[in-house]
Amino acid sequence: MQYFSYLDESALDRIHEASLEILEDVGLLVRNKKARDRFAEHGAAVDETNERVRIPADVVMRYLALVPPTITLRGRDPKFDVTFPRKLPVVATASSAPDIVDPVTGLTRRATSQDIARLGHVVNELDGFDVFSISVLADDAPEGHFNLSRFYPALKNCLKPVRTSVVSVDEARQILKLGELIAGSPEAFWERPFINFGYCSIVTPLTMDFDSTENLMFFAENGVTAYGTVAPIGGINTPLSLPGMMVMVNAEWLATMCLAQMSRERTELIYNFLPVFADLRDGAYAPGAIEVGMMNSIVCQMARRYNVPAGGYLGLTNSKVSDAQAGYEKGMSPLLGALSGVDFIVMGGLLDALMSLDFGQLAIDNEIAKMVKVVRAGVEFSEEALAIDDIKRIGPAGIFADAPMTLENMTTATFMPELADRKLRETWEEQGASTIHQRALNKSMAILTRQPNPAALTPEADARIKAHFPGIVAGDSSLPDGWVPAETGPTAPVRARRQSRRRNAPG
Amino acid sequence: MQYFSYLDESALDRIHEASLEILEDVGLLVRNKKARDRFAEHGAAVDETNERVRIPADVVMRYLALVPPTITLRGRDPKFDVTFPRKLPVVATASSAPDIVDPVTGLTRRATSQDIARLGHVVNELDGFDVFSISVLADDAPEGHFNLSRFYPALKNCLKPVRTSVVSVDEARQILKLGELIAGSPEAFWERPFINFGYCSIVTPLTMDFDSTENLMFFAENGVTAYGTVAPIGGINTPLSLPGMMVMVNAEWLATMCLAQMSRERTELIYNFLPVFADLRDGAYAPGAIEVGMMNSIVCQMARRYNVPAGGYLGLTNSKVSDAQAGYEKGMSPLLGALSGVDFIVMGGLLDALMSLDFGQLAIDNEIAKMVKVVRAGVEFSEEALAIDDIKRIGPAGIFADAPMTLENMTTATFMPELADRKLRETWEEQGASTIHQRALNKSMAILTRQPNPAALTPEADARIKAHFPGIVAGDSSLPDGWVPAETGPTAPVRARRQSRRRNAPG
Repeated sequence: MQYFSYLDESALDRIHEASLEILEDVGLLVRNKKARDRFAEHGAAVDETNERVRIPADVVMRYLALVPPTITLRGRDPKFDVTFPRKLPVVATASSAPDIVDPVTGLTRRATSQDIARLGHVVNELDGFDVFSISVLADDAPEGHFNLSRFYPALKNCLKPVRTSVVSVDEARQILKLGELIAGSPEAFWERPFINFGYCSIVTPLTMDFDSTENLMFFAENGVTAYGTVAPIGGINTPLSLPGMMVMVNAEWLATMCLAQMSRERTELIYNFLPVFADLRDGAYAPGAIEVGMMNSIVCQMARRYNVPAGGYLGLTNSKVSDAQAGYEKGMSPLLGALSGVDFIVMGGLLDALMSLDFGQLAIDNEIAKMVKVVRAGVEFSEEALAIDDIKRIGPAGIFADAPMTLENMTTATFMPELADRKLRETWEEQGASTIHQRALNKSMAILTRQPNPAALTPEADARIKAHFPGIVAGDSSLPDGWVPAETGPTAPVRARRQSRRRNAPG
Repeated sequence: MQYFSYLDESALDRIHEASLEILEDVGLLVRNKKARDRFAEHGAAVDETNERVRIPADVVMRYLALVPPTITLRGRDPKFDVTFPRKLPVVATASSAPDIVDPVTGLTRRATSQDIARLGHVVNELDGFDVFSISVLADDAPEGHFNLSRFYPALKNCLKPVRTSVVSVDEARQILKLGELIAGSPEAFWERPFINFGYCSIVTPLTMDFDSTENLMFFAENGVTAYGTVAPIGGINTPLSLPGMMVMVNAEWLATMCLAQMSRERTELIYNFLPVFADLRDGAYAPGAIEVGMMNSIVCQMARRYNVPAGGYLGLTNSKVSDAQAGYEKGMSPLLGALSGVDFIVMGGLLDALMSLDFGQLAIDNEIAKMVKVVRAGVEFSEEALAIDDIKRIGPAGIFADAPMTLENMTTATFMPELADRKLRETWEEQGASTIHQRALNKSMAILTRQPNPAALTPEADARIKAHFPGIVAGDSSLPDGWVPAETGPTAPVRARRQSRRRNAPG
């Protein structure tokens, strides 16, 4: 398999050199004194009068050489541990929307910790997702439990690697304590820490703020699995060109990489971005734009040059509803990334530019994720696959439906979607003329009706947590009694009647 | 730009050799005596007792060397003439669905010649489409005017290259006569023939029937622009594996290529396929499957090996309605083809596995086509694009919104969609909470309200045609008085109310 790529080696070299030049000549504004001191101790030039840190190229290159080529994310169940790069991209749900489309009322509202519990339950069983990046915020979080109210219901209901961000080191310690309580002891947790943190590691352009920089150092010093995401907005805080944005964000990633390696050598990282351009007709934030996929393709090239895992937010949409726009925006950019060799895709469940999550869209994105993996699994080429003997034996005007190869591989040779409709129109109409969103919502809800969640924490672990964190949210994935999924009516043409002339050939 | 590819050179060689072996050892069933004689006269071994034609490898290679590396499709207006391969893929609408979603009632019904007139008018103005492949049949065609009732309204309303199939040579002559009447004289038409024919050139497996083979020879002998499409169904009439299907369809394409070159050397061709696998859970025809894109990727590799333009049907969907499934199925396979280097994409407007056309989906697919072209246009890499001086000048915590580069390129640096929603939720709700399908249908209808169609034939040309073909259909693109577009109601979550917390960062 030869990956798609936009740039030749000399262009990659030029971006790399330009980034080094920025780091050395302009440097970064670093708002954290401990970080400035750490940079200074490890060879950077620090100007305390304006909090500016300039990093010489040889310092950058020395630390870049220390970055491990792989990263491991661990689940509560070790069978979900994943080390990448691997052949198939690792796919996570997308994270941290404030809102959710209520699966019962169909109304968009603030998300809660119970939504997170339900999401954990569903994501645990959606086999296209490898990682549960906690998809919403918890509006019902008690004081002092902002992200605890997210991690707890997530970890309680999902055995896969769970991640989201924290706002401070104190909060990180709280979450890690949660992990220790789940594992039964600090030793058991730290033997295989099944929590990972993703966070915005830098403020574009070229600014390290206090808290996220403090987090970065804390994670690295303590061997906590974590990775930053650089999230620029082209035309606002980077140049309005793909190469210009790449110079900027590459410099920024290199700077955070340096600080992580200075804090602890051989800290695992991901070369991870959310590279969005503004739509400058009205300044709209456009994560559904095709340029996000194009930028990710360049990201993959740079990551391979640096021999670190390539990742990014893809498959986001600006659409507020699961319509055809949501479909193509969610399908195209992950595919572009996958064909460019991306190792880690954050893509599932969100609508409205990271503002809301939809349980139906989550199941649709799971199916898209599986297709993206099929594409990357590739084409198995062998003499047997060529089937020359079958072609000769069956001959002109023959039929392959009962050939041994067909019978043996009939459900494995091609991807077998669960939600995509392939029925005859008559059958589809008789069965209710549904959209994929309706079927997908039903799938998510069917998972939730299987109560209690077999992945849930043991009562003992749960009791330890509740005793340690008084007032912690309930974290259960149950549904209201007598619930029915939200009505999501088909559009008008769906209801139409017709007679069929089966089948059409390309004319 | 480095294209994506699945196979290495040795695998391509093996497919090529296996196809030659099939042609030489098994051969084809050729139901057309004239074709068998032509094959025999040009070095093939013909067995008249069973109508079998076996083509030695050296004969295949001799004719393969004659295939021109480019093909030209001409429009009624020369500004739409297109020769490819070119940098960007050439995109055509998809063709020949029996049904249409009525834009006024929203009901799916048999398509008519007036629908074709309207489609021609709309496609003429949708700038993502380079070619109008006549998207529906004409249920109102008078006796003897089956495809005349398609070509006439199409050519009358569209200046771009127009194509579809014909069932017989007599019909082809009728359509070419139409072209001569439009051009004003046979000489004027044949100077730049603005009609092209696409047709199923072979019946998989390995069978040439009478009519399409007669057409193939007629087109080649007379220098008519035409290309065949091989349309297998994997697991039914080819082996159930991608390489096995490729061996079969490559052999079939080579056979039709030979007959075309034997009929007239240096006949222009496209290496063009609709490679669909059956969903063997229930035998469903699945042109929306991701494997169609994967096969197209291999098709592109073989086409480059043979130095002929690569084409195919992509962006088809099994969905009956313009939902998220239609969106991702229509976005993903054209992108896979584009990243693999495809030259010609047939993709616009159809739903339900080539069974129906929808005016809204047509405009959505136009926007997808434009994104696919943006992806192929690539990333402009230059010192200016790197914007190093801007990054240095603006510095940490600065703003790029008023940089000269931003102001200069604000509407050209990224793709500016017309139909994709990027609004704030509040604005979108105030403006009606529409789906992209509603906006797209309105766009198509807005084009149709601009009457008369400025692309329409001159009254003189039209009078010539009506005089020559008494009883010919009207071919006008007008809409009923007082029409309003079909109601296509948003799904329930669209109507929800919420308060917004702008903007979310990746957490």
